[in-house]
Amino acid sequence: MALRARALYDFNSENPGEVSVKESEVLTLFSEQDIEGWFEGVNSKGERGLFPASYVEILKNDAASTTNNNSGSSSTSVDTYPNSRYSNIPPGGFDAPSNPPNATENFNKAGSPPAFVTFTAPPPQQQPQQHAYQSVGQPSDDDWDDDWDDNSTVADEPGTVGGRYRDFEGNGPSTYRVSTCSMSRGSAQQAKSSATVSRNLNRFSTFVKSGGEAFVLGEASGFVKDGDKICVVMGQFGPEWQENPYPFSCTIDDPTKQTKFKGMKSYISYKLTPTHTQHQVNRRYKHFDWLYARLVEKFPVISVPHIPEKQATGRFEEDFISKRRKGLIWWMNHMTSHPVLSKCDVFQHFLGCTDEKAWKQGKRKAEKDDMVGANFFLTISTPAAPLDFQEVESKIDGFKTFTKRMDESNMQLNGTLNEFARKQISGFKKEYQKVGISFKVLSQAFEMDQQVYSTGLNQAISFTGDAYEAVGEYFSEQPGKDVDPIMDLIALYQGHLANYPDIIHVQKGALTKVKESQKHVEEGKMDLAQAEGINERCNIISCATLAEIQHFHRIRVRDFKTQMQHFLQQQISFFQKITGKLEEALQKYDNM
Amino acid sequence: MALRARALYDFNSENPGEVSVKESEVLTLFSEQDIEGWFEGVNSKGERGLFPASYVEILKNDAASTTNNNSGSSSTSVDTYPNSRYSNIPPGGFDAPSNPPNATENFNKAGSPPAFVTFTAPPPQQQPQQHAYQSVGQPSDDDWDDDWDDNSTVADEPGTVGGRYRDFEGNGPSTYRVSTCSMSRGSAQQAKSSATVSRNLNRFSTFVKSGGEAFVLGEASGFVKDGDKICVVMGQFGPEWQENPYPFSCTIDDPTKQTKFKGMKSYISYKLTPTHTQHQVNRRYKHFDWLYARLVEKFPVISVPHIPEKQATGRFEEDFISKRRKGLIWWMNHMTSHPVLSKCDVFQHFLGCTDEKAWKQGKRKAEKDDMVGANFFLTISTPAAPLDFQEVESKIDGFKTFTKRMDESNMQLNGTLNEFARKQISGFKKEYQKVGISFKVLSQAFEMDQQVYSTGLNQAISFTGDAYEAVGEYFSEQPGKDVDPIMDLIALYQGHLANYPDIIHVQKGALTKVKESQKHVEEGKMDLAQAEGINERCNIISCATLAEIQHFHRIRVRDFKTQMQHFLQQQISFFQKITGKLEEALQKYDNM
Repeated sequence: MALRARALYDFNSENPGEVSVKESEVLTLFSEQDIEGWFEGVNSKGERGLFPASYVEILKNDAASTTNNNSGSSSTSVDTYPNSRYSNIPPGGFDAPSNPPNATENFNKAGSPPAFVTFTAPPPQQQPQQHAYQSVGQPSDDDWDDDWDDNSTVADEPGTVGGRYRDFEGNGPSTYRVSTCSMSRGSAQQAKSSATVSRNLNRFSTFVKSGGEAFVLGEASGFVKDGDKICVVMGQFGPEWQENPYPFSCTIDDPTKQTKFKGMKSYISYKLTPTHTQHQVNRRYKHFDWLYARLVEKFPVISVPHIPEKQATGRFEEDFISKRRKGLIWWMNHMTSHPVLSKCDVFQHFLGCTDEKAWKQGKRKAEKDDMVGANFFLTISTPAAPLDFQEVESKIDGFKTFTKRMDESNMQLNGTLNEFARKQISGFKKEYQKVGISFKVLSQAFEMDQQVYSTGLNQAISFTGDAYEAVGEYFSEQPGKDVDPIMDLIALYQGHLANYPDIIHVQKGALTKVKESQKHVEEGKMDLAQAEGINERCNIISCATLAEIQHFHRIRVRDFKTQMQHFLQQQISFFQKITGKLEEALQKYDNM
Repeated sequence: MALRARALYDFNSENPGEVSVKESEVLTLFSEQDIEGWFEGVNSKGERGLFPASYVEILKNDAASTTNNNSGSSSTSVDTYPNSRYSNIPPGGFDAPSNPPNATENFNKAGSPPAFVTFTAPPPQQQPQQHAYQSVGQPSDDDWDDDWDDNSTVADEPGTVGGRYRDFEGNGPSTYRVSTCSMSRGSAQQAKSSATVSRNLNRFSTFVKSGGEAFVLGEASGFVKDGDKICVVMGQFGPEWQENPYPFSCTIDDPTKQTKFKGMKSYISYKLTPTHTQHQVNRRYKHFDWLYARLVEKFPVISVPHIPEKQATGRFEEDFISKRRKGLIWWMNHMTSHPVLSKCDVFQHFLGCTDEKAWKQGKRKAEKDDMVGANFFLTISTPAAPLDFQEVESKIDGFKTFTKRMDESNMQLNGTLNEFARKQISGFKKEYQKVGISFKVLSQAFEMDQQVYSTGLNQAISFTGDAYEAVGEYFSEQPGKDVDPIMDLIALYQGHLANYPDIIHVQKGALTKVKESQKHVEEGKMDLAQAEGINERCNIISCATLAEIQHFHRIRVRDFKTQMQHFLQQQISFFQKITGKLEEALQKYDNM
C-alpha cells in the first residue's frame, strides 16, 4: 500500500515543481522522509510535485479515503501574500524566532527549511481579492472594480481606530507599537526557465523567486528598449543610480469620500498632482496597492517603500484618513526621490493617466510586463570596470550590520517616543492641569476676601491657573506635531529595513553562484566563458545592490536631518509657547 | 465606702481647680457622674479638684488599694504642650474628627467636653525639657544650657531626612505632606484670678487659657508702661495695628556647627543681623523655640508664626540645615513684618543682646513678664468709637469661612505641587532622558555608516540626545527652585491658619460674655456698669482680633504675590533654558 497523507490546510503551488493541495485531500507520498521540510508526492488530480510536509498528516491506516471526495475541485494558483506586506509596521523582529508563514525566506536562514515547516496554526488566509493583480495571465477589470478595500476583513492594527495612544499602557495594540522582521517583500516573480545546474532546491529562496538565480545562470532573456535602460554610474562613494534628469515631486491632497453602485460602495479618493505634468489625477488606496505590487514584482533589488497599512474598520474616520494620507505622502516622497522607481513606466502611468480606457490598457500592459524579476537585471548598465567582489562582500556585510543596528535603534526610539507621547497626553497634561486647577481653587478661596488690595492678586492667580491648564493642553497637543512625524519616519524606514534582507539575499545568492562556478571551472565541470558570464551578471546585481544601498543612505540622511530639524523646531515652538503663556500670567501680577 | 477610681495615665493640673494625678494613683470620687468629662475628687495627697474622667477607671471593688503606694510622689505642674506646636505642618484637619490630646479646644467645639475625653490611647508625653521655659517661678540658666535640642527624641517628620520627595507615592511620611487642624497655639496663660460668676467650666477652653475670659470679666490688672502700649487704629479697611514707625528686617546666615563640653555636644548656630542694629548675634534653634514660647504666651490674639518643626535625626545634614534656615528666614520675615511682634521687648532682646549676662537677665525678665495673656489686653488702645458688635461678628464669621477655604485650597495646592515635583523629579526626567538615550543610540547606529555625508547628521543627533538628557536633568532640578518655595509658603500659612481657630475662639468667647451680661442686666442679675465694662473690654479684644485679621490679609497678599511671581519667573527661566538647549541642538543640523 502506498504511503498516504491527508492535507491539513490548503496549499497553493507557487513555483514549478510544487503541487497545490486542498484541505482534506488525500495525497500519495513517495517517502516518509521530508526534504528540507517538503514532501514529494502526487495529489488527487494526479499532479506530481512538492508540498510542505507540515501541511499534511501521514495516514498510517487508510481511513482517509472516505474524505477524498472534495479533492477534485481544482484550486487555482493563488499567491498567498503575507498580510504584513501592507503594514508599514512589520510584526516580527530581525531576530524573530519564527517567520510569518509566507512563501519567502529570511536571509538570515538561507538554506534552512521554509519557515512554515514549524507552523502549526491555521495557514495564512488566502486573499482571493488580490488575485486579479497578481495572476498576470488573467487580468480582469471587473476584479479591478471590486471594492475589496472596503469590505476587507483584514485587521492589521485594530488599535488604530479611535486614538493613537489609547492603549499605551501596554494593555493592547497601538499604532505606536513598532517591531520589525525581515518582512517579505511579497515578490511574486517566478523563474522564467528551469535551470538544470546548481539550482537551489529551496523554492522559497528569495534569490530564486526574485529571478536573481535565473539571471545569474543566464536564463533571463528579453528585449530591452532604450527607455527601459537603467544606469548604475560610479560616484564619489561607489556605484550609484544615475540621477533622474527630470526630478519631480507629487502632492496628495483632498481625500474625498466617493460612492458608487448607488451609494452601495464607498471609498476615499485622493487628488495627486505631479509637478512635472501639473495634471491632477484621482487615485484610491487600492490603486496604490496595485502599483506597489507591480513595483515589488519588477524590481528585485530595489527597496520599494511600503504603502500605509490596510485597515478593516474605521476607514472613513477623519483620523484614519489623515494618517493614511500622511503615509501616502511619505510613500510618494520616497517614490519620486528614487532615480529608478520615479522613472518607471508603471509609476508614470499611475501618476499621469486620466483616461479610463488608457488606464485599463496601461494596467494590462504593466501586468504583462516582461522586464520584471530576472529580466529587470537585463535593463541595468554598469560602470565599465567591474567591482572587486571581496570589497562588495565587505560592503554588503557592513550594510547588513548597519540595517540591524538601525532597526534596533529605530525600535527603541519608537518605543521611547511612543511612551513619551503617551506621557505627555496623559500624565504631563494631567499634572499641569492639576496645578492649574489648584491655583484656580486657591484664587477662589482668596476671592472670599473682597478687600480692594486683594482682588488684583485673586485675578492674577486665577489667570495663572488658566495658564497652567492651557499648558497642560499644549502638552497633550504636542505629540501630534513632533512625535508623530518622527514615528511616521521610523515606520517608513522600518519598511525599508525589512526589505533589505531579501535584497541582500539576492546579492549574496549571486555571489555564491560566482564562487560555485569558479570551483566548477577548477574542477573542469564548467567552461570559463560560462563562469565569466556568471561573473559579469553577478557584477550587475552587485552594482544595482550597492547603488540601492547608496541611495538608501542618502535619503536616510536627508530624511532624518529634515525630521530631526522639524522635531526640534516643533519642540522649541512648544516650549516658547509655554513660556509665552507663563509670561502673560506673570504680567498680571505687575498690574496689581 | 467611698467611690474610688484609679488613674490610667498621668495628668498634670494646668488650671486652678484641677488636681494632678499619677498613673495607678487611687482617687476618691465625689460622684460617678462626670461634669462635662470631668470628675471631681481627692487625690492620694488629699488635694481636691477636677481631673479628666477618661484618665481614670472607676473601681467597683477595693482591689486598687494595694497599688496605691506610688501615688505619694508629687507631680509638679507641667504644661503639656502639644508636640505639633513645633510643626509647621499641623497634623490633623480642620474638620478632623478627633483632636490631638492636648489641653486646648477646637473653636468649632466651643462648649463641648475637652477633646481628650474620648482619648483612650496613652496621654501626650511630657516634655520636661521645656519645663524650664514655662515654670516662670523657677528660671534656671542651667536648663538653658541643656542641649535638649540635640538629644531630643521627638521625631516629628521622619521622612524629612534624605530626600524630600522620597516617599511621594503615598507610602510613607513626606515633608511635602501637609494637613491642617485647629492646632493648639500652645498658650499656657492662666487666669490670674478666680471669677465667681459666669465662669466657663471647661478649663481647656482657649478663651479661658488665653486670659480672654479673665480680661473680659475685669479680672486682669497690671501696670502698663508707655512703651508697652499697643495701638489699634481705624484704617481704610477697618481696625489695624499701628504700623511700626521703625521697620526693619533681619538676615539669617551662615548656619555653623558648634561644639561645647569638649565636643560632647554639638549644635548649629545661625548669624542674625537685624537692619536696625546692624549688630550680628548668634542664635540657636532652641533660642528661637524659647522666643516662640514667650510670644505665644504673651499674645493671645496674635498669630505667632510657627518656627520650623523639630527633628530628631539628621539635624547636622546639609539639606536639613538649609531647610531649617529657610524656615527660620520665613519666620523672621513674618516676625519683622508684624507691627506688634516686631516691636515687643522679648523679640528685641532676642535680636539685639550680645552679652551673656544681659541675655540671662533679659531671659528672666521675659519669663516673669506680667503683661501676658489677660494682661496683654490691658496694653491695647483702641479707636475712640467702639465697633458695632454685629458687624464684628459678621466679619469674624466671614474670616472663619475664609480660613477654612484657604486651608483647604492650600492643602490641595500642596498635594498637587508635591505630586508635580515628584513627577518632574522622577517621571518627567526619565521620559526626557529616555528620549535622549534613544537619540544617542540612533546616532551610534548611524555612526556605522562612515560616509562623509553622514557624519554631520550623526553628530547632530548625538548632540540632540545629550540635549534631551540635559532637559531631563533640568526637570529634576526645577522643583527645588519653584515648587519648594511655594510649599514653604503654604507650610507657613498653614501654621497661621492653625492659629486662627484659637484667636477666633477668644473673640467669640468675649462676644458671648457680652450677650450673657446683657441678659443678666435684663434679668437684673448684673448692674449696667459691670455690663458696660464687659462691653468695652470685648471691644478691645474685637479691635485686636480684627487688626490681626487685617494684618493677615495684607501679608498674605504680599507673600502670595511675591511667591507666585517668583514661581512663574522660575518656570519661565526653566522653559527658556530648555528652549535654549534645544536651539543649540537644532543649530547642529545647520552645520552639516
